[in-house]
Amino acid sequence: MQANDIGWTKTEEQIAQQAFKQAYEREIKDLIQTVRESAGQIAKLDDLWRLNDFLSAKRHHIDGKYDYSDSTLLFVFAQLIQEGWLYLDDLEGLSKDKLTKISALTRM
Amino acid sequence: MQANDIGWTKTEEQIAQQAFKQAYEREIKDLIQTVRESAGQIAKLDDLWRLNDFLSAKRHHIDGKYDYSDSTLLFVFAQLIQEGWLYLDDLEGLSKDKLTKISALTRM
Repeated sequence: MQANDIGWTKTEEQIAQQAFKQAYEREIKDLIQTVRESAGQIAKLDDLWRLNDFLSAKRHHIDGKYDYSDSTLLFVFAQLIQEGWLYLDDLEGLSKDKLTKISALTRM
Repeated sequence: MQANDIGWTKTEEQIAQQAFKQAYEREIKDLIQTVRESAGQIAKLDDLWRLNDFLSAKRHHIDGKYDYSDSTLLFVFAQLIQEGWLYLDDLEGLSKDKLTKISALTRM
């Protein structure tokens, strides 16, 4: 699937950036909530190091994923939808072609 | 100061191990409390990554420090006393020579 050589109109860029921001905020909010809850359950050293490992993995994952770039945007949107941080509805206004591609990617 | 070529009686070994364990438990308990409290204050992503960095540093520090070895024990005890996880009283029963050395090391 060719996803990196398609043009984005100004409006589409704005929709994409807004969706990207929204997914990011949802994921961060959820992560903060998860860490707060799991920190409250910490009873021993292993729990601390497990939290440390969890945070390190999340950091790596989030830093990599939210690196806004037109060339990978359709893939990132598909991933965000699969992970539950974004909905196709958030992308309303993108061309039918892009939405179809994103939708197809989410089923891969 | 020669601290690594001194003998330990059976009783001293037991006192040392008990003191070591006690300091470890104090430090871990304090760390768990600190993490619980700071996790409750997390409001944004930077706070999460700061907690991650804090845990990584603590892990490195604790893993290194609590590596029980006769040859470095006097130094570790001095460090634990300086950090507030151990008191000279916890080491009561060690030879006067060892206690003097530990005490001197805490002032370095």
